[in-house]
Amino acid sequence: MTYLDHAATTPVLPEVLAAMTEQWGRVGNASSLHAGGRAARRAAEQSRERLAEALGARPSEVLFTGGGTESDNLAVKGLFWARREADSRRRRLVVSPAEHHAVLDSAEWLAKHDGAEVTWLSLTPTGRVTPEALADALGNGSDVAMASVMWANNEIGTVSDVAALAATAHAVGVPLHTDAVQAVGQVPVDFTASGVDALTMTGHKLGGPMGAGALLLRRDVECTPLLHGGGQERDVRSGTLDVPAIAGLAVAATTAVTSRVDRAARLAALRDRLVAGVLEQVPDAQLNGAPLDDLLDGTVAGGPGRLPGNAHLSFPGAEGDALLMLLDARGIECSTGSACSAGVARPSHVLTAVGAEADRARSSLRFSLGSTSTDDDVDALLAVIAPVVERARRAGR
Amino acid sequence: MTYLDHAATTPVLPEVLAAMTEQWGRVGNASSLHAGGRAARRAAEQSRERLAEALGARPSEVLFTGGGTESDNLAVKGLFWARREADSRRRRLVVSPAEHHAVLDSAEWLAKHDGAEVTWLSLTPTGRVTPEALADALGNGSDVAMASVMWANNEIGTVSDVAALAATAHAVGVPLHTDAVQAVGQVPVDFTASGVDALTMTGHKLGGPMGAGALLLRRDVECTPLLHGGGQERDVRSGTLDVPAIAGLAVAATTAVTSRVDRAARLAALRDRLVAGVLEQVPDAQLNGAPLDDLLDGTVAGGPGRLPGNAHLSFPGAEGDALLMLLDARGIECSTGSACSAGVARPSHVLTAVGAEADRARSSLRFSLGSTSTDDDVDALLAVIAPVVERARRAGR
Repeated sequence: MTYLDHAATTPVLPEVLAAMTEQWGRVGNASSLHAGGRAARRAAEQSRERLAEALGARPSEVLFTGGGTESDNLAVKGLFWARREADSRRRRLVVSPAEHHAVLDSAEWLAKHDGAEVTWLSLTPTGRVTPEALADALGNGSDVAMASVMWANNEIGTVSDVAALAATAHAVGVPLHTDAVQAVGQVPVDFTASGVDALTMTGHKLGGPMGAGALLLRRDVECTPLLHGGGQERDVRSGTLDVPAIAGLAVAATTAVTSRVDRAARLAALRDRLVAGVLEQVPDAQLNGAPLDDLLDGTVAGGPGRLPGNAHLSFPGAEGDALLMLLDARGIECSTGSACSAGVARPSHVLTAVGAEADRARSSLRFSLGSTSTDDDVDALLAVIAPVVERARRAGR
Repeated sequence: MTYLDHAATTPVLPEVLAAMTEQWGRVGNASSLHAGGRAARRAAEQSRERLAEALGARPSEVLFTGGGTESDNLAVKGLFWARREADSRRRRLVVSPAEHHAVLDSAEWLAKHDGAEVTWLSLTPTGRVTPEALADALGNGSDVAMASVMWANNEIGTVSDVAALAATAHAVGVPLHTDAVQAVGQVPVDFTASGVDALTMTGHKLGGPMGAGALLLRRDVECTPLLHGGGQERDVRSGTLDVPAIAGLAVAATTAVTSRVDRAARLAALRDRLVAGVLEQVPDAQLNGAPLDDLLDGTVAGGPGRLPGNAHLSFPGAEGDALLMLLDARGIECSTGSACSAGVARPSHVLTAVGAEADRARSSLRFSLGSTSTDDDVDALLAVIAPVVERARRAGR
């Protein structure tokens, strides 16, 4: 099996399983006052410290959640509700149209249900939000509840200059949320240095467990809870702390971040070979998103402008779904875009948002590399891509 | 260690760990279309079928969530929003004051934020909601969005006749949600037979993983999502399906339900011995909640009116927190009430709701038995309870 879908989910790291197994051997609710409860609480707080350190945050800025979707919902709805309650003029949400559906659909629901108004940001052809575009959309900021721009796009891998965007938002007093689900472990992510007010991350994209993520939230930012109850997590997120998953999440994040530089270089080299090989085999294939050597000026710690593990290509005249299934039949697993839309095939909203024509959007595949990817995976793809594309094109005629 | 806090959380069953480990060995997002994704989806759907069968529901009625708090929030807020959108007169929430904070705080937030009005149900002295009390509170039902009454109370273990309550609510066209987190695996719980519209359950109270639960929701009941995004789970709950945890949840529920009759008899006998022994050692201790032999007429399948594993006692003149810590120092783990309030000690809202005086509420302990409980655990408690109470009373003077 050739797994080229690490952006959808990743194999669990052995050290993550070990950390979770250690916690599974205990019993105790982290909110219980007895010794077993206190031990669970200690494990959770140690994990909070580790996760905070890996991401350049303070432990008190880490709110554990059930994953990226919950963190995105909490950030968008929670900041909107809190900011509008403080000033009823703040009705606008300023959002990139290439966001994950957890952000998009939260914003659209607030518009329908809660009187919000969504201002869609314009994107560069590579899918980037520029500080100028954000400034234009914010205006003087007085009517804006919050802005949301993802750190790195989950489909085409484009990285935006989040630090510059945060500065732009703050210049007019608006908090910025960033979905960094794909960025953590791939490009340098430092919460404090970036200046963002809220940051979404999740475990299962970086070798950790599903069902565990975090929202990093600055202490001075008000956020209305989405889940009410016991008051865990700064009274912003209630629910029994899932200590085994939290322990796994912290180990995964620490491992992904500390091994990032070497892994990113290795994956970028693999990715470049994959793209060059595909373009050689299928000369009219088109790379979507930022150029492979895009360097994003001004990024924290000088990171790249495209995720090192992302290759997103269009194959004109072939249907993405047909390509996916033909590759799958040959043991190669990839995606037509996001895996997060419940198995429903539709043209990528991301490619549509960057101005791609419908044909190009429908003919695209995402190959995403991760910790277990090797030259063999690239070879396996290159051995079959030409006949697969040829066959998909014939089927589509 | 003597663990008498199974109502807070339970040890993970070996068969649950095995089911999760099997899934951890795979890679694939259940929303991905390739073979790995489809295998994950199959595992999730098999787990959905198993969970549905264990709880007398149809598979399509099972919505996987991140746990009890999320399910409670989704039911209260989601039903309120959907029902009020269909008819703006439906502003009232009819809620028992002994509910878990996930229900109480959701209702209170809707009152503060969304124009809801909360009608608190009256309780019997044992903490039960009667159909008559519910009928009184509902009136003709035209202004009621939803009602919420827990199947079994998490502190004092009182079971309500949920089937009769559902019939009462339906007589005036109001949907009923029940939090059955403590009931599943302890008393007979059949979703269809009970007639309720929505039911909350979670894994970690019955030998399953934390971070995994479900809301059972009838197909004909509209529910506004709390988490928007990819559209997983009938478009009512988005987020990547946590397949390992879901597999563990299904195994835990199946095991708990199929072994329920024998275990309940065993735990009830242990519980009766615990209570009798404590009352012998501390003659002025008081049992809270329903009598041990309470039989709830009309319950589905003739279950008991008190959870078999629950013993909740007050020790006049002693502080619950002091008792808890003194017992903990002797290796006995229990609770002063719910563990779900982030470690903050305060008088139980449940005892207050049933009319207990503040002294009695503050002097109470909950001992909760579960699958691993034995006679040795009861003996360990009985060996120390008298001197512990005596010492706590002296400290309180």
